Amino acid sequence: MAASSSITAAQALVGRTMSSHGSVAPSLPDRLSLPAGFGLSSFSGGAVRAVPRRRAAVEPRRRASNPRAAAVETLEGKTGTVALVEKSINTIRFLSIDAVEKANSGHPGLPMGCAPMGHILYDEVMRYNPKNPYWFNRDRFVLSAGHGCMLQYALLHLAGYDSVQDEDLKQFRQWGSKTPGHPENFETPGVEVTTGPLGQGIANAVGLALAERHLAARFNKPDNEIVDHYTYVIVGDGCQMEGISNEVSSLAGHWGLGKLIAFYDDNHISIDGDTEIAFTEDVSARFEALGWHTIWVKNGNTGYDDIRAAIKEAKAVKDKPTLIKVTTTIGYGSPNKANSYSVHGSALGAKEVDATRQNLGWPYEPFHVPEDVKSHWSRHVPEGASLEAEWNAKFAEYEKKYKEDASELKTIISGELPSGWEKALPSYTPKSSADATRNLSQQCLNALATVLPGFLGGSADLASSNMTLLKSYGDFQKATPEERNLRFGVREHGMGAISNGIALHSPGLIPYCATFFVFTDYMRAAIRISALSEAGVIYVMTHDSIGLGEDGPTHQPIEHLMSFRAMPNILMLRPADGNETAGAYKVAVLNKKRPSILALSRQKLPQLAGTSIEGVEKGGYIVSDNSSGNKPDLILMGTGSELEIAVKAADELRKEGKTVRVVSLVSWELFDEQSDEYKESVFPEDVTARISVEAGATLGWEKFIGSKGKAIGIDRFGASAPAGKIYKEFGLTPENVVAEAKSL
Amino acid sequence: MAASSSITAAQALVGRTMSSHGSVAPSLPDRLSLPAGFGLSSFSGGAVRAVPRRRAAVEPRRRASNPRAAAVETLEGKTGTVALVEKSINTIRFLSIDAVEKANSGHPGLPMGCAPMGHILYDEVMRYNPKNPYWFNRDRFVLSAGHGCMLQYALLHLAGYDSVQDEDLKQFRQWGSKTPGHPENFETPGVEVTTGPLGQGIANAVGLALAERHLAARFNKPDNEIVDHYTYVIVGDGCQMEGISNEVSSLAGHWGLGKLIAFYDDNHISIDGDTEIAFTEDVSARFEALGWHTIWVKNGNTGYDDIRAAIKEAKAVKDKPTLIKVTTTIGYGSPNKANSYSVHGSALGAKEVDATRQNLGWPYEPFHVPEDVKSHWSRHVPEGASLEAEWNAKFAEYEKKYKEDASELKTIISGELPSGWEKALPSYTPKSSADATRNLSQQCLNALATVLPGFLGGSADLASSNMTLLKSYGDFQKATPEERNLRFGVREHGMGAISNGIALHSPGLIPYCATFFVFTDYMRAAIRISALSEAGVIYVMTHDSIGLGEDGPTHQPIEHLMSFRAMPNILMLRPADGNETAGAYKVAVLNKKRPSILALSRQKLPQLAGTSIEGVEKGGYIVSDNSSGNKPDLILMGTGSELEIAVKAADELRKEGKTVRVVSLVSWELFDEQSDEYKESVFPEDVTARISVEAGATLGWEKFIGSKGKAIGIDRFGASAPAGKIYKEFGLTPENVVAEAKSL
Repeated sequence: MAASSSITAAQALVGRTMSSHGSVAPSLPDRLSLPAGFGLSSFSGGAVRAVPRRRAAVEPRRRASNPRAAAVETLEGKTGTVALVEKSINTIRFLSIDAVEKANSGHPGLPMGCAPMGHILYDEVMRYNPKNPYWFNRDRFVLSAGHGCMLQYALLHLAGYDSVQDEDLKQFRQWGSKTPGHPENFETPGVEVTTGPLGQGIANAVGLALAERHLAARFNKPDNEIVDHYTYVIVGDGCQMEGISNEVSSLAGHWGLGKLIAFYDDNHISIDGDTEIAFTEDVSARFEALGWHTIWVKNGNTGYDDIRAAIKEAKAVKDKPTLIKVTTTIGYGSPNKANSYSVHGSALGAKEVDATRQNLGWPYEPFHVPEDVKSHWSRHVPEGASLEAEWNAKFAEYEKKYKEDASELKTIISGELPSGWEKALPSYTPKSSADATRNLSQQCLNALATVLPGFLGGSADLASSNMTLLKSYGDFQKATPEERNLRFGVREHGMGAISNGIALHSPGLIPYCATFFVFTDYMRAAIRISALSEAGVIYVMTHDSIGLGEDGPTHQPIEHLMSFRAMPNILMLRPADGNETAGAYKVAVLNKKRPSILALSRQKLPQLAGTSIEGVEKGGYIVSDNSSGNKPDLILMGTGSELEIAVKAADELRKEGKTVRVVSLVSWELFDEQSDEYKESVFPEDVTARISVEAGATLGWEKFIGSKGKAIGIDRFGASAPAGKIYKEFGLTPENVVAEAKSL
Repeated sequence: MAASSSITAAQALVGRTMSSHGSVAPSLPDRLSLPAGFGLSSFSGGAVRAVPRRRAAVEPRRRASNPRAAAVETLEGKTGTVALVEKSINTIRFLSIDAVEKANSGHPGLPMGCAPMGHILYDEVMRYNPKNPYWFNRDRFVLSAGHGCMLQYALLHLAGYDSVQDEDLKQFRQWGSKTPGHPENFETPGVEVTTGPLGQGIANAVGLALAERHLAARFNKPDNEIVDHYTYVIVGDGCQMEGISNEVSSLAGHWGLGKLIAFYDDNHISIDGDTEIAFTEDVSARFEALGWHTIWVKNGNTGYDDIRAAIKEAKAVKDKPTLIKVTTTIGYGSPNKANSYSVHGSALGAKEVDATRQNLGWPYEPFHVPEDVKSHWSRHVPEGASLEAEWNAKFAEYEKKYKEDASELKTIISGELPSGWEKALPSYTPKSSADATRNLSQQCLNALATVLPGFLGGSADLASSNMTLLKSYGDFQKATPEERNLRFGVREHGMGAISNGIALHSPGLIPYCATFFVFTDYMRAAIRISALSEAGVIYVMTHDSIGLGEDGPTHQPIEHLMSFRAMPNILMLRPADGNETAGAYKVAVLNKKRPSILALSRQKLPQLAGTSIEGVEKGGYIVSDNSSGNKPDLILMGTGSELEIAVKAADELRKEGKTVRVVSLVSWELFDEQSDEYKESVFPEDVTARISVEAGATLGWEKFIGSKGKAIGIDRFGASAPAGKIYKEFGLTPENVVAEAKSL
């Protein structure tokens, strides 16, 4: 062992000064012990190279000012020696370096800089069971800076998760591998959510922490805290710049989510170079303004004890989330590329990999995990099993004493729907009074909340317009986290991504969230992640057309229906009345791995004859028809509020002796999944006289009207005026449909 | 006159306490003078009613602690008496109340609360010419809280703008009126940008302020500051909650936009009620962390001198933008609805209108502007004319001394393109080397920057991936605002909306902005406002398909092309090679009132035979054809990177004796605008064997392939793997196209 010589190697790893942020961050380890048995002789000369530096750095010796650094503090009492810790950290670094190098694609910089906090989290702090990644009470970890996914893959591998074997690391970013280019929960058990698009992960983490807090408040007992875990998240500079992260951090502060602990990887480098070119705000001060507790670990590269102390402090603050700003060096260890954008998103290259191996004293083959590191980490499999077993015993106790609660909690944990739940949905007849589908939606929401224990949600400051309040429950607030009405404020994007986090916390949590349909534009990135990550969020989107009237074109959706029909793995539902609204909710609840968007009217709509829940389940179906032999003269089709127009036009045409079929196309996706026979029974190939009517873009309707049909819709922006006037001016009337039918 | 009695009426107008924010806001006017000639006798009794209050309020008398309030300070020396000021403010309030009442739709609360700051801005502070709303050097005003648009309409009306006449106020929110439900620049001269979707306006204002700073830095001379105006913006609680506002405020602080002055209407009410349910952060502290100067006007209801003093202070701070937090009472003056959400977005109702008239001492008919108020405001027409005339004289001086600069500035002011500018665009032959369209785009961007003085832009931290750097220019930064490369950081949404502000500042400013195509999801709300507000922003969107490879499905657009094709008034361009990229830029620059999105490849593409700038201008055109008589056996069509696949498949099929036409459909919107004859010449009705190939959603292609054709595309999410592998696995290959062609 040559620990004393190693200082010179370590000294090369200078970090960066914080001059732009007003103070100096010491990043030089006072003493860096190398792994036992590793000879340093080959590194005495040329290996000692400085990383590129932009500013002159003063590097005070850190231990002098921080007595804690001398001690190996442990949170759980199971930390290895400093030498072993460092060896483990370098293992994480080189697994990342090697995987990116083999793929010749990826982001080595973050894993190299964040390996210390990653190691401490997964080896010393977090409670999980590698052999059951879905154990309910596990601590959740989110890598919001998802491009650094090799960090997480390396950690899952060391911790003993089956999803990331040796071979998986070697298949990084390859077709069909468990190690895609960004973390994907649906590919890799152990990954909680899907990140990569910046800012989504911190929002998901807020959702996960909200879920924990809500369930803990509902189910914990003084003698049995059955729900009790932390949510950890690593965010980068990129996440911090995104607006969504401010939205959700403001909410996390407002809600006082004390078990949310965020590590801000403050490495001052983004793709375009130094963050100084676009990001000079004081992030910690901003978070304090948002109601967070903040801590600064000035040396995230080697200040292991500081990281540990920060986590301890964060856990002690129970009424606020904590931001631990950890100043690191991106690409730490790479003598020529550390602290520069070149290490952010490209393989180091063979030469620099060699130089980094020399610099960090790493004599091993690519992908090698030293035996002592392997052996150190091996305890997590039995320990994880014990943790889960202990919790299971605790749950058995809980079940004995609190039968009803236990049964509810079980539903939430398993995702199994209570039998007969769908009977709670209301039904209607043509004699039921006309109503806006947003109001009918509220009846469904309230009905579902009584039968589904994991049903909760809210609106982005439009609860009274979206009609989304659950009347039997209060507001989820800091002092009342057991309640189920979420108040998101005017933060659509954060709302969607928080809902993703809630949905992915437990299979039985079914979050809904609401705003005006046009404002899906604000949250589209989160909705897409719902679809991709199989998070069954229910999007309650009211004011779904020009029918909202006077608010005008900024508020009137036009292209939105079609834009979501083009998105994979999402259901775009546009119910026409009460039965269809109930059907839409039935479908939405059943599709746990596919989010649903319900487009709902502001304006009153009649209850139509022929609509049904069963019809909605098929996506498209015949509402009325006066023809026989599957040969109507004309097929009129529509969705939502325009189905009424089609029905009225059909009545007119039938009076004139025509045979007319009216089809509701409430969900194109569900209709696509029906058999060819069923499709032919609704849209017989021989009937080419077809008209669609929908208050939205016509592009896409060719699919159903064919080349001889006519699409009545809107291919311009809307207008500010009373709704009836706009419908008339835009030709969305039974009269116009009749006229077009005659011209066919 | 009964000024002394009026105190009792005024005393009824208590504001709200700031207990949640840690201090008390005095909102009681010390002495409220009523207009001369107005008898108060009828208000001595029942009219004195308290507004609803949620918290016990201590209302200290304000003048005692603020000696300034005793004086009528004026910024320009033209303020009227306090009585007249108050009469004018009440005129604004009642024009708003009356218009909303007549429409029975709208948002009276904000105009009633913000009337004082509105009055001071338009009557005392801002420099504008009502008879030429487009005068270049005018101060810009943005109502980010756009729902309060009656405030702005009332102000434009009083100031003498032709766009808002008496009749227009009465037509508020009606079909075809100049006073739509939210401010729309394309409807109402005097309105700078289109707001309503929250947070957009503050971002637009940052863009306007950026434009001013950039042009001032480029064109001002020590003896002639020809560019010199302020940008004012009113933001509400809703705007502050939206992530976009944090993004752009961070940038404004970073850039040090000292002539941006934001009024934060701190009224503590949003649609869902008190902001305490979702918004308890310390906004001013956050803005300080973002690098802003902040001021708090605690009594925005009647503290006129405090508002004036704040503006003066804000103007004195030249290196930072200023946030003036103005604590107001929403619906100020309404005895039963003020300070509650019920006054936010609905008409007061006849009874409450009467009560408010009584409470504020307003004996006039609806829509009445008292003569003294009218007469006071009437000076703005001659004064505005003088301001413009003075500036014109200044410009004449400038032109004499600085000919070249004046000519450039004129181009920017007028929007006239320099003749022959399009000759700068590069052209290519099939022998030119293969290249990614993102690289070819960079050649165009750099070529255009040399010939278009108003061309500037940048990327959301992906400049080196989007290839958007202008090589002859440096970075627009605090110290170098004359430069043209904008560094937006990872803030896509803010970037889009800032670009809208730049585009709408002057007709000759042509901003471009860039990120990965998939991240249009983050900025879609801003892109839609570009389209709606006729802001000709050029969106440079690279990595436009699965062709980006290993980053995987979070980064691979699928539905995006189709989703923008469905959006009104925007050009979705997907060029296939160098000539088409040049054509796309030609079209984008020419379409000043229609934004363009260029979808560009990460991967190399060959320069194809038959592509042309002229072809792009038609949107769709024949690239190659071996048939005659407009009767090919098969039409193959594609866009962007898949046009190459169509070309290769056509080559194969022709070898086998088929006649095949290859069509590039680079812009569906432009093709739609062509004559029927032209369309028939490209897609003859009789030719039903048609295949499309595009690496995106197939929904919508039915429009061109008809009911017998075949769309080859992607209707699932992408995957993480090398690009070639994904193309193959997804069947996007010439071989598969050939196979499908044979099956038709």
